[in-house]
Amino acid sequence: MHVLVTGGAGFIGSHLIDTLLLQGHSVVAFDNLMRGRLSNLEEARKHPNFQFVQGDILHQNEFFPLFTAHHFDVIFHLAANSDIASSHANPNVDFDNTLSTTYQVLLAMKKFQVKQLVFASTSAIYGDAKGVAVTENFGPLFPISHYGASKLASEAFISSFCENYGFKAWITRFPNVVGERATHGAVFDFIHKLRQNPKELEVLGNGEQCKPYLYVKDLIEAILLIWQNTHDQVNFFNLGAESRTKVKEIAQMVIEEMGLNATIRYTGGDRGWVGDVPQFSYSLDKIHQLGWKAHVSSNEAVRKSIRYILDKDLCN
Amino acid sequence: MHVLVTGGAGFIGSHLIDTLLLQGHSVVAFDNLMRGRLSNLEEARKHPNFQFVQGDILHQNEFFPLFTAHHFDVIFHLAANSDIASSHANPNVDFDNTLSTTYQVLLAMKKFQVKQLVFASTSAIYGDAKGVAVTENFGPLFPISHYGASKLASEAFISSFCENYGFKAWITRFPNVVGERATHGAVFDFIHKLRQNPKELEVLGNGEQCKPYLYVKDLIEAILLIWQNTHDQVNFFNLGAESRTKVKEIAQMVIEEMGLNATIRYTGGDRGWVGDVPQFSYSLDKIHQLGWKAHVSSNEAVRKSIRYILDKDLCN
Repeated sequence: MHVLVTGGAGFIGSHLIDTLLLQGHSVVAFDNLMRGRLSNLEEARKHPNFQFVQGDILHQNEFFPLFTAHHFDVIFHLAANSDIASSHANPNVDFDNTLSTTYQVLLAMKKFQVKQLVFASTSAIYGDAKGVAVTENFGPLFPISHYGASKLASEAFISSFCENYGFKAWITRFPNVVGERATHGAVFDFIHKLRQNPKELEVLGNGEQCKPYLYVKDLIEAILLIWQNTHDQVNFFNLGAESRTKVKEIAQMVIEEMGLNATIRYTGGDRGWVGDVPQFSYSLDKIHQLGWKAHVSSNEAVRKSIRYILDKDLCN
Repeated sequence: MHVLVTGGAGFIGSHLIDTLLLQGHSVVAFDNLMRGRLSNLEEARKHPNFQFVQGDILHQNEFFPLFTAHHFDVIFHLAANSDIASSHANPNVDFDNTLSTTYQVLLAMKKFQVKQLVFASTSAIYGDAKGVAVTENFGPLFPISHYGASKLASEAFISSFCENYGFKAWITRFPNVVGERATHGAVFDFIHKLRQNPKELEVLGNGEQCKPYLYVKDLIEAILLIWQNTHDQVNFFNLGAESRTKVKEIAQMVIEEMGLNATIRYTGGDRGWVGDVPQFSYSLDKIHQLGWKAHVSSNEAVRKSIRYILDKDLCN
């Protein structure tokens, strides 16, 4: 198939592209390189069935010409703001980069008759479910971050566009993703802080925040499995590892892997930042019934991410 | 209290303003008069505590100056596209007028520190629940009209803004509203069609579409009751009449009230237009527990609406 991946130079997008190329698809990556990196596409760019186009979805004069040059069978829409905490100060960061990008993708699909959309949604649409293991049918949906709001808003328009114009969509809702090429998140922050002060690590909140961390290669496998094996007009799945990791465990693992003897200082409170969901738990029954489980546990995924960041820096 | 009503010259907004003024509040109505009418505010404009300002929420240079001239205690945000079927051809109608207006209201609240928002949401956020009597906690939420998507998206941002900036919100979800000053909908369409051809009435769909119709004055009473009596950060309620009315019954009532002997011709199919939810049913337990029930049944509300439109035309 001929595939467009938006946000294709990003952490998750680039892993997806590597796998799509392996499976024999031809792929165009579109990315404004605000957060994406060409170095993530080093392998992909050697492949004859791959093309990279730099541009911004929010500029129709950059985005829409893609569709006159190509007839895409499917769009994997991954472009979004990926720094959830940042939009507290400026909600436009998410309204524009997370919601409006999705809306522009949908307008392009309508105009150029692209029939399939695979969408990267998030556990943040569920808001603070107070530790309840949320199923895909959980309600009410009151996200507490602008990122979660923008992804829920995106899902809403994906649904109405599917109904109005006969598209099919695959919505995958996942929590924190870690692994090779990750560029931010708790692991990244802790390493950064410990490099500045190897004796003490400041951790936002009380360290008890507990979430499932999913290894990026497991995520890619699940996304492609869902796309290839479910056939409703709107297909939607929680994706995750069965296990969870506390923020304090991440801090300890980072200190250990860096070979340090730092003390941890907690800033206190049950959450790291406004819009953070401190205790998050997922029901994975639906994806398990499709025959998929994460191979890598939450703790192992975190440790892989730590080692990758440390190793990579050693090479530089 | 000092109250801003967006969409204040509209069908529902103008009824709300009449009641707010009666209750002793001072009210500013803001409306671009695209669908609203100054004639709806005929009584309000005689009141010393009322002011009308014409302008467009989407033009910040028209909207934001309101907040330097006034310190509002609460915003009732009713401005929206109200012609659900129209955005099939152009989804921007709802993205701009239903979602972006809400987002601009939220940005204004953040900037000018308005702490309370009462929001007119809709049963359309629930999508096609296949006749299940939906509670406020129903999921998954996959709206099938762009109007429903835009209202769900609005709710999502209301939720994230409440969490991030300490607002309180009252979200009222209601179905079709009818009564004095209504300007469109099935009743209006049928009268219009019968004036053009008094012998035959074309009805979209098979006439079996069945929904609750809520009388506008009942709606206003419920909205104000919820605002005054619930105190969570985000309060959310279904509002409606317990009874429902079939489209074929509306057609028969219109023909009867017009004193005609027309035959009805159904175009067939289970819905009138793309994005229409043919069988809609609501759980009203939550609002009933607050001590409120609609005074006017669905059929009576429809008949009041028919008589008002016919009487008003007789006067003109």
